[in-house]
Amino acid sequence: MGTSLNRVEEEDYSSYTNSSDFISISLEDNNNTTKTATSTSKSSSELHPVCLPPHVTTWQKLNHRLREIFFPDDPLHIFKDQSWRRKLVLAFQYVFPILRWAPHYSLSLFRSDLIAGLTIASLAIPQGISYAKLANLQPIIGLYSSFVPPIVYSVLGSSRHIGIGPVSVASLVMGTMLDGEVSHSNKKDLYLELAFTSTLFAGLFQASLGIFRLGFIIDFLSKATLIGFMAGAAVIVSLQQLKGLLGITHFTSDMELIPVLESVFNSIKEWKWETIVMGFCFLIFLLVARFIIGHLPKGVNPTSENKLYFHGPHLQLAIKTGIITGILSLTVSSLTLILKSFLTIVHGSFSRSAVNYNAGAKTIFSNIVMAATVLVTLLFLMPLFHYTPDFVLAAIIITAVVGLVDYKAALRLWKLDKLDFVACCCSFFGVLFISVQIGLAIAVGVSVFKIILHVTRPNTVVLGNIPGTQIFRSLNHYENATRVPSFLILSIESPIFFANSLYLQERISRWVRGEENRIRENNESALKCVILDMTAVTAIDTSGIDAISELKKNMDKRSLQLALVNLVGTVMEKLHQSKTLDSFRSKGLYLTVGEAVDDLSSSWKHWP
Amino acid sequence: MGTSLNRVEEEDYSSYTNSSDFISISLEDNNNTTKTATSTSKSSSELHPVCLPPHVTTWQKLNHRLREIFFPDDPLHIFKDQSWRRKLVLAFQYVFPILRWAPHYSLSLFRSDLIAGLTIASLAIPQGISYAKLANLQPIIGLYSSFVPPIVYSVLGSSRHIGIGPVSVASLVMGTMLDGEVSHSNKKDLYLELAFTSTLFAGLFQASLGIFRLGFIIDFLSKATLIGFMAGAAVIVSLQQLKGLLGITHFTSDMELIPVLESVFNSIKEWKWETIVMGFCFLIFLLVARFIIGHLPKGVNPTSENKLYFHGPHLQLAIKTGIITGILSLTVSSLTLILKSFLTIVHGSFSRSAVNYNAGAKTIFSNIVMAATVLVTLLFLMPLFHYTPDFVLAAIIITAVVGLVDYKAALRLWKLDKLDFVACCCSFFGVLFISVQIGLAIAVGVSVFKIILHVTRPNTVVLGNIPGTQIFRSLNHYENATRVPSFLILSIESPIFFANSLYLQERISRWVRGEENRIRENNESALKCVILDMTAVTAIDTSGIDAISELKKNMDKRSLQLALVNLVGTVMEKLHQSKTLDSFRSKGLYLTVGEAVDDLSSSWKHWP
Repeated sequence: MGTSLNRVEEEDYSSYTNSSDFISISLEDNNNTTKTATSTSKSSSELHPVCLPPHVTTWQKLNHRLREIFFPDDPLHIFKDQSWRRKLVLAFQYVFPILRWAPHYSLSLFRSDLIAGLTIASLAIPQGISYAKLANLQPIIGLYSSFVPPIVYSVLGSSRHIGIGPVSVASLVMGTMLDGEVSHSNKKDLYLELAFTSTLFAGLFQASLGIFRLGFIIDFLSKATLIGFMAGAAVIVSLQQLKGLLGITHFTSDMELIPVLESVFNSIKEWKWETIVMGFCFLIFLLVARFIIGHLPKGVNPTSENKLYFHGPHLQLAIKTGIITGILSLTVSSLTLILKSFLTIVHGSFSRSAVNYNAGAKTIFSNIVMAATVLVTLLFLMPLFHYTPDFVLAAIIITAVVGLVDYKAALRLWKLDKLDFVACCCSFFGVLFISVQIGLAIAVGVSVFKIILHVTRPNTVVLGNIPGTQIFRSLNHYENATRVPSFLILSIESPIFFANSLYLQERISRWVRGEENRIRENNESALKCVILDMTAVTAIDTSGIDAISELKKNMDKRSLQLALVNLVGTVMEKLHQSKTLDSFRSKGLYLTVGEAVDDLSSSWKHWP
Repeated sequence: MGTSLNRVEEEDYSSYTNSSDFISISLEDNNNTTKTATSTSKSSSELHPVCLPPHVTTWQKLNHRLREIFFPDDPLHIFKDQSWRRKLVLAFQYVFPILRWAPHYSLSLFRSDLIAGLTIASLAIPQGISYAKLANLQPIIGLYSSFVPPIVYSVLGSSRHIGIGPVSVASLVMGTMLDGEVSHSNKKDLYLELAFTSTLFAGLFQASLGIFRLGFIIDFLSKATLIGFMAGAAVIVSLQQLKGLLGITHFTSDMELIPVLESVFNSIKEWKWETIVMGFCFLIFLLVARFIIGHLPKGVNPTSENKLYFHGPHLQLAIKTGIITGILSLTVSSLTLILKSFLTIVHGSFSRSAVNYNAGAKTIFSNIVMAATVLVTLLFLMPLFHYTPDFVLAAIIITAVVGLVDYKAALRLWKLDKLDFVACCCSFFGVLFISVQIGLAIAVGVSVFKIILHVTRPNTVVLGNIPGTQIFRSLNHYENATRVPSFLILSIESPIFFANSLYLQERISRWVRGEENRIRENNESALKCVILDMTAVTAIDTSGIDAISELKKNMDKRSLQLALVNLVGTVMEKLHQSKTLDSFRSKGLYLTVGEAVDDLSSSWKHWP
């Protein structure tokens, strides 16, 4: 009996269910040892029951869903099953993570932190100065960003690897957005006030994202679009530095490619060959050495001031700028923190955390060391460099932003995912030819469109049986998979929503039509049953429910049986509530495709 | 040997893979006849190989993808494998479907069509008049919409069930949008020109959607949001008719709830009790009888005119109105055409197709009968009703739009899908309190947000083994499913995109943490392996690829094995191209969860 099954299986799958009384398979055929005894079709009571999931109230579902949306990391898990006293200690440590590591701090930890802190300081000082320039601010303000925030972070922060400081993209966007409305050269004070106010709003926005657990908003800036965005921004910023490198005095403050190039070539007469030679020599030196760790700023330690702008016509601009820069810097740092693997290919704004990580920072104390170093610089070294020529700053900025053009990552996108590459190009050219904000908007739009497109036009795949098993896989993917006569087995690779319910109905009808044509051409046995593998249909809405019942009616009209396999809990529940499931109760619901094929074909009972 | 397996399986799954040399199972235990011989773990060569899908070039992929997006219905399938002559005939029939049915037309078909045509005409005449009123147009223009389009459709159209005519929602939106800028009472001629131009653009827009195969755009108006939208619009329109019912002369042209109610109550002095009594009596009569098939319009047959508006300040408005009404009417008619099941609960704008369907229309000729009837009305009956009192029109409109408030469908949404109900409410209140266009925008926004939310926060489900089988299902859903000691089996229920890659990494880490805590509390055997069932991961982008390799590194750090099960073709290909798959090659890739569990647990070889 066993050997007969082996022989039959290789020739004609339709005999497969004949051997329902067969239990053991032979051992003598070595090529077929993978074949398992699969017969289960003697009577329907032998099937594994398909049951509804246990009842859950709407309130429980909502509670679960909200917790999944807002607290995916379960931030309070450390408090579970603790005494009240311990809970209090943990709560303090939760708010002030410094309490966690400070009591155990040792000399050897300090040694590592000292080296790491000094290393990142040597990176932070020139970065602070050049990023300040990107935001059209004085270098000293850039240095403050490497001095105050690290100290705050060392008390409140929790990741020892993250290096705190300004983010190039955010600085650039702030510079452009503010300068578009208020010129930094003509209205210096107003510009400074707006910059401070924007920064405050960026902070408030970030804090509220944290408090209201809305961090997932930043997930919508995909890495692909950021790569394009940063490259585009880097090109623009580099071109703008031609002002300093060529010694041009009249230059556009626009950020688009065309006005910048126009500015460069319309002022050919202004080009100063001395500046050009010196600037380019210095630039080549920097690019060759990639030695951007210099000490070149100006100014002394000023008192902190209350230059905030809370009224008047530009407040809206300040808020908008704050929100956009807030999102941008969060995105950049979350990418830095979580995707360390990505760090290996991206330099630039990620570089500080990378250095901190590689320099072996043991605790957040490394940030304090860095802050102290920056303070020393502010107090003692900066007066030495009071007058830095423009071409030097320009060269530094170019060197810093060139690293943002990550062509390797772009190539990888092209190789792996063409749509990601398109998103990357859109944001690159958006920044280059339209504007920084529009470029960013296009990038987000393309990213969201990608998701939407995947949902509106989901794949449907025809499955076949892998001979000698109960496994059913895509005919296109597994070449040894074979069609089961009289069955069309489709796997639907997406939740069924209003956005794809009509499409899926049409597509499934077309599969059926195609299969019937194929059968007619090859004179095979007629199609009798369509099985939908619903494993990947992880959700359904009311349009989807209607689509299923409509499909059932259509199949009934064509005298085809329709069976649903492996319904996910929530989908099953909704189909049950809408009474759609009722028409599937007998011979329409199965746990696996194999059981569906066995049961249905044995129920027809007209095999040769 | 067989009996020992049966006993062992019921007690402890961990012994399951012990019996790897077991081949036959006993017959004596009747309760266990569903158990199949599943052992495959003797050596890895017994596993079913996981292979890469056959190579497909980028161009082939793009071609396939574009065809799926733009030609899901394969519109040219009828031309396949036909002679050139036959192809020409088919092409003519494709463009002019009348050629398909006209040659076979018979008297009996005509009889059915005559009855159906007369029936829908009796519905079309009052509808045309009241819908014209919604668009602030003369009744006669409404009647033309039931006269010209059906004739055009009978030549070019292909569905015999669809009844052609004006759509209430589209009429309403056009009326509001145009009236917001150009008052229909003060600037009658300009308003009429704009209305004609909008209609032209609506038609051009719909035609271009058809030609460029962009019909999927209309999928984004979900049924749920349309239900809310139509109910909100119906309430507003009904309230506006209070002008006619109460005999008020000074009335707002705004469409929001608050200005309309203000208008009603600020003009209490204008209320005329005679109009009120007559109006409400007539309204009650109509509502009780639902007898809206009357003959009440005015006017005679005018010549067609060239009143189009292609220049000047309002052109943008006309285009915008055209596009929005074009989308709306397409959505309504596509819902009518495809989801007939839905018709049973929705009246109003769908009613004409429903009547046509129920009246037994056999061919599109029923539309010609209807058009002829409307023409007769235009020529002979209309002068009789030249002066229709406003309160009569108001009562007709209220009766017509009341059917749009489909509370039963709204209740069904609440029962089946809370998020759909929220979308419905948002569009209802958006229309009621803000404006028709904003209401529509909110509705689309909520619908898209629903999709996005599902993608950003996908489910992850813990699977367990259904005893005695190789089947693994959700522990929450199937109560008889049991955990496999030392394994954590997770099913990821969504494609992995940038929008959820960080979330999934966090969530999986949390599952692992939770499982380790659970094991510690229950003193079970330590966690050794995490299996990800990737069946529902039907797509992946570069962020997703990074997430997988990051996850692999994390698991390696925790000394846990990570195995991927049932990778879909495209996902597998991308993981292969990015070299991520390399680290999974040995003991990391399986065709089914069962094989993964068997192979991994047998490879550890330290079972008691």
